[in-house]
Amino acid sequence: MKLPMGFRASGVRAGIKPSGKPDLGLVVGDRPLLWALTTTRNLVRAPCVTRNRARAASEAPVRALAVNAGNANCANGDEGIWDNEDFAATAARALGLGRPQEVLTASTGVIGRRLPMERVRAGLPVAAAELSDDLDAFAEAILTTDLVTKTAETEFGGGTRVVGVAKGSGMIHPNMATMFAFLFTDALVDQAALREAWAGIVRRTFNQITVDGDTSTNDMALVLSSGRRAASLDDLADALERVAGELARSIARDGEGATTLITVEVRGGRDEADALAAARSVAGSSLVKAAVHGRDPNWGRILSAVGQAGVVADLSAIAIGLQGTTVYRGAPVAFDAEAVSQAMRGPDVVIEVDLAAGGAEGRAWGCDLTAEYVKINALYTT
Amino acid sequence: MKLPMGFRASGVRAGIKPSGKPDLGLVVGDRPLLWALTTTRNLVRAPCVTRNRARAASEAPVRALAVNAGNANCANGDEGIWDNEDFAATAARALGLGRPQEVLTASTGVIGRRLPMERVRAGLPVAAAELSDDLDAFAEAILTTDLVTKTAETEFGGGTRVVGVAKGSGMIHPNMATMFAFLFTDALVDQAALREAWAGIVRRTFNQITVDGDTSTNDMALVLSSGRRAASLDDLADALERVAGELARSIARDGEGATTLITVEVRGGRDEADALAAARSVAGSSLVKAAVHGRDPNWGRILSAVGQAGVVADLSAIAIGLQGTTVYRGAPVAFDAEAVSQAMRGPDVVIEVDLAAGGAEGRAWGCDLTAEYVKINALYTT
Repeated sequence: MKLPMGFRASGVRAGIKPSGKPDLGLVVGDRPLLWALTTTRNLVRAPCVTRNRARAASEAPVRALAVNAGNANCANGDEGIWDNEDFAATAARALGLGRPQEVLTASTGVIGRRLPMERVRAGLPVAAAELSDDLDAFAEAILTTDLVTKTAETEFGGGTRVVGVAKGSGMIHPNMATMFAFLFTDALVDQAALREAWAGIVRRTFNQITVDGDTSTNDMALVLSSGRRAASLDDLADALERVAGELARSIARDGEGATTLITVEVRGGRDEADALAAARSVAGSSLVKAAVHGRDPNWGRILSAVGQAGVVADLSAIAIGLQGTTVYRGAPVAFDAEAVSQAMRGPDVVIEVDLAAGGAEGRAWGCDLTAEYVKINALYTT
Repeated sequence: MKLPMGFRASGVRAGIKPSGKPDLGLVVGDRPLLWALTTTRNLVRAPCVTRNRARAASEAPVRALAVNAGNANCANGDEGIWDNEDFAATAARALGLGRPQEVLTASTGVIGRRLPMERVRAGLPVAAAELSDDLDAFAEAILTTDLVTKTAETEFGGGTRVVGVAKGSGMIHPNMATMFAFLFTDALVDQAALREAWAGIVRRTFNQITVDGDTSTNDMALVLSSGRRAASLDDLADALERVAGELARSIARDGEGATTLITVEVRGGRDEADALAAARSVAGSSLVKAAVHGRDPNWGRILSAVGQAGVVADLSAIAIGLQGTTVYRGAPVAFDAEAVSQAMRGPDVVIEVDLAAGGAEGRAWGCDLTAEYVKINALYTT
């Protein structure tokens, strides 16, 4: 996939992953970039997260993003903080940038192991030499046990572009599921307005996907803009949300062990927060996820998950739909369970919930819970 | 197990469970009972939960508890509310009590199916005829897919007794995991003080166990006292907490598909709420649960789960122990991973976390995540 104007990227094999797969990536702007960042809500944060947050607070422009997979450089004490600074400084030198502060970093992989800095230092000049306007090598270099690369793109305003790349859950060495999403655009908008819009977009997209309820120490959703084309903020926000939504769904679909993308569409919420919370609760329920895996039209678990969300709802007014069939409306509704179960036999299951408490909507995405998930996360030992 | 003075109980086969196992139980006081109730925090509540809560608000004494398993009588609309009233009224008649209000009800099992009232009506007089001072038949009648009955007892003050019975996660027809805990005592204390103490005990025991993070629509923890023996509130509270703790651990150990009881002991919390939240977050993490199943001393997942709890903690000061071995102290600690993995090969795994932020402690209990859990919850269809 081609990057928007003003960006170049690369991905190389630095030997950080034991598998020898690509594991070091760079994205560079020709000029200083506008940016907006959202990070994990986990209070245990990797040095890359802490440092990028500090950079964002400073309002200083950035020029590049350096990413490694195969090692999260998290919980390594002060050494981890220094290694992360070294990562940024080495990337800045390789790119001929004046200051390490112009480089953002992102690491994903096993935690509690030192980043192999000699390999990072050897790899970065190679990555800098291979920069091009193509995103594909970078998309591959940021993966862990993801089964597929995840990219998405859209256009608006006669050629202004938004291109996104993400990685989801899964680790070379199973440990925790880090989510990265990086979106690139050539749209010129006010940075403060972009940051405000981005917070809402992340709330409705990446924060609404769930694989197993665990939040990584390294999660990051970043948008970088080369600012080459004048654009309206509304148009850009729409485009970012389309790309973010597509990436979010890709991550959920490729959840560890997953066979099915679960989309939960909530309407009738008192407000957006309620609708989003109800959708998230249904998508994240282990019992709902297991029922979807078994193709069981088990609306009782869906109803219970709605109740668990703690949002305003009148049990006697809630309606639930499964693959387009109403299965509950204040009380059990007669339906052909075998037919609905058959309709659930595909890679996509849609659950609709009407909270009947207002006019707000919200969506969430998850995946089925499978024995394979347990295998991936249990049947390896350190 | 013998009941405390002033109680009789029974359990019979009423034909509510398709398996034909015992499914209808009664506990009756010789005289009006003091009581304290805690129920599910799920906003979707079964009629038995709603009705018992209303009874508790009225401060009126109760005489009996009628319980059925095999059908949760939840989400059945107005019919479900009437059936529940009928359940209480029929039990009151069978027991020769003047008013249905003197009977509390509790139902567990599949949701969204009408309670088979003809079987309930036929079974209650049989249950009333079989009352005795033994709890065992009742303990069996309240189970769903629990593998074992769960009872516990203690004594204090030279013969004052607390006897408890519980059921945990698992359903005849897999649907959701209802938890019941009923404690009986002959201790006479002030009811208002008992209710206040009970809320704290439930917070530290039953609310600290997690099987899959799903909260049932029917969960209930109830203490009934015949008030036959004068007792100090502090002594009674200690005794209740011992029995409640033992029952809570029994429920976690018998979680669906579980092979291992996980005990999380948190110290150094800023306050109790922080310590309890951190313990619950670790015990409930799918990734930690899967790691324990794989006997993987994966402290990164534990640290991440602590961070996810959102409690005050300084990452550089946190310490983590696994089966008595320190595996993290602000930074990775060298340890013999193979030896710790070996030490985890038993039915009990203890995770210790020192938040190093204060003097408060908290515990939580969970179980490992196994492929069997997925099977139980997925590989049946309605």
